[in-house]
Amino acid sequence: MGRRRYKHSEKKVGTSPGSLIYVGQEIDYKTTIRRILYNEASYTVETVKRLDSCGRPTDGSPFVSWLNVDGIHEPAVVERIGQQYHLHPLLLEDVMNSQQKPKVEEYDGAYVFSTLKMLHFNSVTQELENEHLSFVLGKNYLISFQEERKIDLFQPVLDRIEASAGKTRRNGPDYLLYALMDLVVDHYFVVLDSIGEKLEILENSIIQQVAGQQTLTRLYTLKRELTLMRKVVWPVREMINRLILEDSELIRPATMPFLRDLYDHVIQVLDSIDSYRELATGLLDVYLSTLSNRMNAVMKTLTIFSAIFMPLTFIVGVYGMNFDNMPELRTQNGYFVVMGIMVVLTVLMVIYFRRRRWF
Amino acid sequence: MGRRRYKHSEKKVGTSPGSLIYVGQEIDYKTTIRRILYNEASYTVETVKRLDSCGRPTDGSPFVSWLNVDGIHEPAVVERIGQQYHLHPLLLEDVMNSQQKPKVEEYDGAYVFSTLKMLHFNSVTQELENEHLSFVLGKNYLISFQEERKIDLFQPVLDRIEASAGKTRRNGPDYLLYALMDLVVDHYFVVLDSIGEKLEILENSIIQQVAGQQTLTRLYTLKRELTLMRKVVWPVREMINRLILEDSELIRPATMPFLRDLYDHVIQVLDSIDSYRELATGLLDVYLSTLSNRMNAVMKTLTIFSAIFMPLTFIVGVYGMNFDNMPELRTQNGYFVVMGIMVVLTVLMVIYFRRRRWF
Amino acid sequence: MGRRRYKHSEKKVGTSPGSLIYVGQEIDYKTTIRRILYNEASYTVETVKRLDSCGRPTDGSPFVSWLNVDGIHEPAVVERIGQQYHLHPLLLEDVMNSQQKPKVEEYDGAYVFSTLKMLHFNSVTQELENEHLSFVLGKNYLISFQEERKIDLFQPVLDRIEASAGKTRRNGPDYLLYALMDLVVDHYFVVLDSIGEKLEILENSIIQQVAGQQTLTRLYTLKRELTLMRKVVWPVREMINRLILEDSELIRPATMPFLRDLYDHVIQVLDSIDSYRELATGLLDVYLSTLSNRMNAVMKTLTIFSAIFMPLTFIVGVYGMNFDNMPELRTQNGYFVVMGIMVVLTVLMVIYFRRRRWF
Amino acid sequence: MGRRRYKHSEKKVGTSPGSLIYVGQEIDYKTTIRRILYNEASYTVETVKRLDSCGRPTDGSPFVSWLNVDGIHEPAVVERIGQQYHLHPLLLEDVMNSQQKPKVEEYDGAYVFSTLKMLHFNSVTQELENEHLSFVLGKNYLISFQEERKIDLFQPVLDRIEASAGKTRRNGPDYLLYALMDLVVDHYFVVLDSIGEKLEILENSIIQQVAGQQTLTRLYTLKRELTLMRKVVWPVREMINRLILEDSELIRPATMPFLRDLYDHVIQVLDSIDSYRELATGLLDVYLSTLSNRMNAVMKTLTIFSAIFMPLTFIVGVYGMNFDNMPELRTQNGYFVVMGIMVVLTVLMVIYFRRRRWF
Amino acid sequence: MGRRRYKHSEKKVGTSPGSLIYVGQEIDYKTTIRRILYNEASYTVETVKRLDSCGRPTDGSPFVSWLNVDGIHEPAVVERIGQQYHLHPLLLEDVMNSQQKPKVEEYDGAYVFSTLKMLHFNSVTQELENEHLSFVLGKNYLISFQEERKIDLFQPVLDRIEASAGKTRRNGPDYLLYALMDLVVDHYFVVLDSIGEKLEILENSIIQQVAGQQTLTRLYTLKRELTLMRKVVWPVREMINRLILEDSELIRPATMPFLRDLYDHVIQVLDSIDSYRELATGLLDVYLSTLSNRMNAVMKTLTIFSAIFMPLTFIVGVYGMNFDNMPELRTQNGYFVVMGIMVVLTVLMVIYFRRRRWF
Repeated sequence: MGRRRYKHSEKKVGTSPGSLIYVGQEIDYKTTIRRILYNEASYTVETVKRLDSCGRPTDGSPFVSWLNVDGIHEPAVVERIGQQYHLHPLLLEDVMNSQQKPKVEEYDGAYVFSTLKMLHFNSVTQELENEHLSFVLGKNYLISFQEERKIDLFQPVLDRIEASAGKTRRNGPDYLLYALMDLVVDHYFVVLDSIGEKLEILENSIIQQVAGQQTLTRLYTLKRELTLMRKVVWPVREMINRLILEDSELIRPATMPFLRDLYDHVIQVLDSIDSYRELATGLLDVYLSTLSNRMNAVMKTLTIFSAIFMPLTFIVGVYGMNFDNMPELRTQNGYFVVMGIMVVLTVLMVIYFRRRRWF
Repeated sequence: MGRRRYKHSEKKVGTSPGSLIYVGQEIDYKTTIRRILYNEASYTVETVKRLDSCGRPTDGSPFVSWLNVDGIHEPAVVERIGQQYHLHPLLLEDVMNSQQKPKVEEYDGAYVFSTLKMLHFNSVTQELENEHLSFVLGKNYLISFQEERKIDLFQPVLDRIEASAGKTRRNGPDYLLYALMDLVVDHYFVVLDSIGEKLEILENSIIQQVAGQQTLTRLYTLKRELTLMRKVVWPVREMINRLILEDSELIRPATMPFLRDLYDHVIQVLDSIDSYRELATGLLDVYLSTLSNRMNAVMKTLTIFSAIFMPLTFIVGVYGMNFDNMPELRTQNGYFVVMGIMVVLTVLMVIYFRRRRWF
Repeated sequence: MGRRRYKHSEKKVGTSPGSLIYVGQEIDYKTTIRRILYNEASYTVETVKRLDSCGRPTDGSPFVSWLNVDGIHEPAVVERIGQQYHLHPLLLEDVMNSQQKPKVEEYDGAYVFSTLKMLHFNSVTQELENEHLSFVLGKNYLISFQEERKIDLFQPVLDRIEASAGKTRRNGPDYLLYALMDLVVDHYFVVLDSIGEKLEILENSIIQQVAGQQTLTRLYTLKRELTLMRKVVWPVREMINRLILEDSELIRPATMPFLRDLYDHVIQVLDSIDSYRELATGLLDVYLSTLSNRMNAVMKTLTIFSAIFMPLTFIVGVYGMNFDNMPELRTQNGYFVVMGIMVVLTVLMVIYFRRRRWF
Repeated sequence: MGRRRYKHSEKKVGTSPGSLIYVGQEIDYKTTIRRILYNEASYTVETVKRLDSCGRPTDGSPFVSWLNVDGIHEPAVVERIGQQYHLHPLLLEDVMNSQQKPKVEEYDGAYVFSTLKMLHFNSVTQELENEHLSFVLGKNYLISFQEERKIDLFQPVLDRIEASAGKTRRNGPDYLLYALMDLVVDHYFVVLDSIGEKLEILENSIIQQVAGQQTLTRLYTLKRELTLMRKVVWPVREMINRLILEDSELIRPATMPFLRDLYDHVIQVLDSIDSYRELATGLLDVYLSTLSNRMNAVMKTLTIFSAIFMPLTFIVGVYGMNFDNMPELRTQNGYFVVMGIMVVLTVLMVIYFRRRRWF
Repeated sequence: MGRRRYKHSEKKVGTSPGSLIYVGQEIDYKTTIRRILYNEASYTVETVKRLDSCGRPTDGSPFVSWLNVDGIHEPAVVERIGQQYHLHPLLLEDVMNSQQKPKVEEYDGAYVFSTLKMLHFNSVTQELENEHLSFVLGKNYLISFQEERKIDLFQPVLDRIEASAGKTRRNGPDYLLYALMDLVVDHYFVVLDSIGEKLEILENSIIQQVAGQQTLTRLYTLKRELTLMRKVVWPVREMINRLILEDSELIRPATMPFLRDLYDHVIQVLDSIDSYRELATGLLDVYLSTLSNRMNAVMKTLTIFSAIFMPLTFIVGVYGMNFDNMPELRTQNGYFVVMGIMVVLTVLMVIYFRRRRWF
């Protein structure tokens, strides 16, 4: 599990570029493809049974066609879709390569390809996982690819389309693309909140000085999650920015303000990541100095005990010597005088350490 | 309370973009709307009772119309104002989203939307809080939105307008926008001074070596405040810069020098934040080395005690042995000789440690 | 071996610029040159025996000519090839200078020179080694130079060309250049995976607190490898970017998407390097705090022992004194009373340290 | 005194922008204004008695007019000068605001306003202080404003003008502006040298290991001074750069090389500041590791004493026991044998610790 | 000696800009000027006796004229050369100011001035020293200025010119300028190698854990050298870049590839400096953790001794008490039982600490 965290696309070395190889975790269920046709007036959804029947809609089609592909691990399926929509082989490679970083690319004005990552905490391993998503935006269609899961990530958008002839139904596939991306970015905020909560628990335990080695490991894990999150979100910022600047004909002007809004949200995610990283570093400093302070306290305790009892033990040692001629031993009150002296010495020591604020 | 610090707009996931949802702390009082109409000659202020009556002034209106909205948590109110002024839905969403970061956006030359944050210390929790402010600048009107508080933040500007036909009265709504932003930036300086004072107290306590674990927690809190402040002020710089560069028709040339001046002030705030962060980091280093120095002092004390008393205790232990045949014990002056040797030994030890500058 | 790591081209000082001097490790075998002629229809490979026979193909040649030079340490060979292809002296100097950093340079539209580094772990020394590669791309030829090894690095590409009339066979020398560079970048991922694996082992040993000084040395070595890797890969990014932007006539438009894809991969390598560096730094912090925690534990053990036994030893010392008049010594139960007191004292001490959570 | 260090222009909150309020230390003496008229042939200096008589020179005036204002705390004075020279209110505000950061601004080609800071060590408090300077450059006049001090900062330039008909006399007010700025930058070098000297003293005391907590406080102070200095000098770089790039008509081409030279000097100051900061950080590391090393030495001393004397004390303790049946006590040479064993043990210990290089 | 390291041009404060003052170490020998006239066919070198005879060559001169000036401390000499070649006073000031940072400046197309620093280790003080070099490139002449040393830095180039009619002889003064700069950059590599070697020695001593306080001081010195080197080389990069970009007529197109090559070398030097700095920082971390590890080991030794001998000493103390009624003392085998118990206790302790891996 852990090993996967630092794994790259090693098996590709020496193979021809553009070969379709699924690089990701092995999955054992088959690709599910759903086709949604909608416009303001009507709405249909069907599960595609035969790959040949999910072809490109004709230019005059009155519907927006959304092809939602769940599963990117079967080269044959991806290749077949690619053929029907005339997609570039490198694009298909990027769809299947779950290590591909977020980017956007326009192919001759015919379609716009974009890819980014969904982020969520795996509820079992409590590790931050990302899921590879790709979109192909054409004139009147959108193809979305996602790694196959039991739950379809895009269900909320699907529900909204079904529920009412709202904004999504009234707009084209470019708005649909925005809506799906917006969903992804909203999930970044959920992850961010989860990290923020953890950070706060750590902050409390460190400031109230009940933190142990465990806390530090957690702080490190949190930093690792922030590093991963930044790596995933940073190129999304660039990606959306290029989508805005490239001014493709496939994206209507009315959709632009929404993309700019999305861009702002991504920036906000990045700002929060940076703040959290700084705070995590600050917490580490507090923790380390807490350790030093505790050590100081321990050492002071030791030193006070030593400073008080070493002289006393020496004194009683003196009068434990067996010299024949030790006049003090023979006096009537010698014992009591020595005991008195030791009491005085102890009191002086205590005063001395109090003055130096050692306790 | 603390949890809020790391909270984002989680409830929005899956809702349609552009939906008006208030994201912020729950508030229980209602929106107050005041309309101020002024020009050099006259000045009127009225509290708006019915939402329908606060519509957009006609183009030929001889007055500058300032609509001051206290409270951004009621979607119905914000939406109604939006309709009357023909504002974009995303703009209204930004007005209500108190997590929205500072930005400026011009909508087709019809109006300029800008949003930024007020900063102040909550006098109860002693935490740095920010308040979400938005402005819509039209040809002859300005709408200002603020989170509802008992005290209107913009009162000083209102008072100035009321007091005399000064610069604000002689100029258009763009100058009013500047005046309100200037007020916000002035408050940044107040917060900065407060942080500077705290930093100085910490500096004194650390340099005079009376700092404890408490001090470090305070240093961390201060750094967190600076991080938050930087996050809030940084985009304001960008925002004002774009206001200057975009050269909107809604901002008169005469207002430009004032905006540039404002820009300079924001830069100055950012410079000070950076300096403070550096100083805080420097203080941490001083504190940590103070801990090390103290530890050294403690250890030296312990070592000196041990190095003096361990040999002495050993010596008296020797003469506490019960061997039948220990010639020294039988001599007349054995006891005194041993005591003398121990005095000499102690003196030598003291000299040795003095030479190595251990005390 | 180690000394080589920090060695530069010292012997060049004062020699004329453009002189051909091989700067690198001494090698004792001779240059091997192979010429591969191919097009979609046919394919031939021959080992070049006489340098004069490997000249530039005529412009109308129906073949792509690939001259694969294994060995860059013989000035005579490199110079002879340079003469036949009219290459600039500085270019030849860069081919032989294994310290040359990655770059691309076009010479008057006649040919494009590019150079980069192969990275791999030496299986014997377990050190990261780099190999200097150079390419000269002409209209219908490609010359590749590599430091001489027992195994030809480019064998996989050669095999692919031989195996079938695939993409490489159908395209020009620019695609071949891309294919070779792609091979190099694929190897970066292999190295990255190897580093990732090491990082994970270190992470486990540090988090499970079984790390010793050895671990830290390994962490340092890993950081050094990342530093070296970054130094090697960083200019490759710039190099490929310029290859894309310069829009040379020698690179066909159809090859561009592949180069952009390659660029993305290099960016991904750099991102991973940066993440790994951050994680390595985070691990160091965890390790250092582990040390502090352990020290704390050791000191507490010592202090508990001292705090319990010092008072006890003092007490028994008191009753070991030899005063004639010590009433307690004469009582019937004195011994047992003192023993009881000491038991009580010990119990109190244990309770005290438990309360302070010292063990 | 210290509080001032972190103080900003708090009293301005809520006042109208452009209001003239002196923000700085309270001063109790009055503004001194001197007017210097010079050209290559002649030179006159007069102290201005009445504010009305220091008006703008006519365009055809054969003299360069330099108005040197000592004191910026009297709004009436600054406002009066502003009226006579038609200066913008915001400019006057900047003249009086001693917190204003360095900048340059051209007003409609009529005059160029620039402001920067003088730096010097206060000889009493040994703190780095800055003084706010402003310049207004017109076609044939220069106005210089400085905070009032007992000594006029610009005296050296005045002396040079008086002494001979040199470069300053032969050139216009733009060259005079350059000459005054050059003087300011020269003072930066003086401050830099002073900091360099302190750094060197710290370096020596840290490397020769005679540094104490005091040294660290000094290092922190030095870093604070460098932070302040950087904050003051950094915008000066930008300011001079804009002066060069804006290509104002008020600055003659012949003055340009001098400004570029000045720019180089400022860059050099900034480079040195950065180097010093790095060195200071390096010194801190050395110091902290010195502390660790010392601690190690102290602990070793303690451990050696303990390791030698604890076993010995135990042995003599054994033979101090009062068991009736302890055969060794009764032997003739028991005492001497035990003493011998202890000597051997001590020697072995010493050898052991020597081998581990503990002393 | 050390003080010089942080010294700036203090004596210049208040003097007129453009005044010729030599700022550097005092030197006591006189300037040597050599004039080399060469073209492909012939070559002459003469030592200039009278300053008037080293004037600018006529435009039609068939020779390249190289005026090599050793010594920049005599204002009269520099001024005289300046007059004959019509050089700008500020240029002459830069020639004499050994604190001047590297830059290039073209004066009206008449000549190009460039200045940079030579770096070498002083073999006596083992400190990194830099030497100020300046070049004036005219149409058919080059003037080189260097601080006077016993050995002429440019001798290798002179030798090469003398030796054969090679590239330098065949090209103009721009190529000569390149050749001299190349020599300087080659020396950077020598210094870099020397630093690399030191770094490696430090690396070995730290990793093999034989490093002491001395090592840290050396690490600091090395970092200081890297800081200095970076400060010297960084502007050289900018300088050569501008030389390439400004496209002066004085630099022939054929020389451009050589300058680009030089630029690459400078980048490589800077890359190596940055890598070394990173490695040095990494080494510091390793060293500091080594200290912590050692401290842990020392403390464990101490604690083991204490934990074993404190209880034992207590036990023997118990039986050293002089109570009349201590039954154990009177038993036949009490002594041996107690000794046995102590042996068992010691064994248990040793097992306990072994289990916790303390030794």
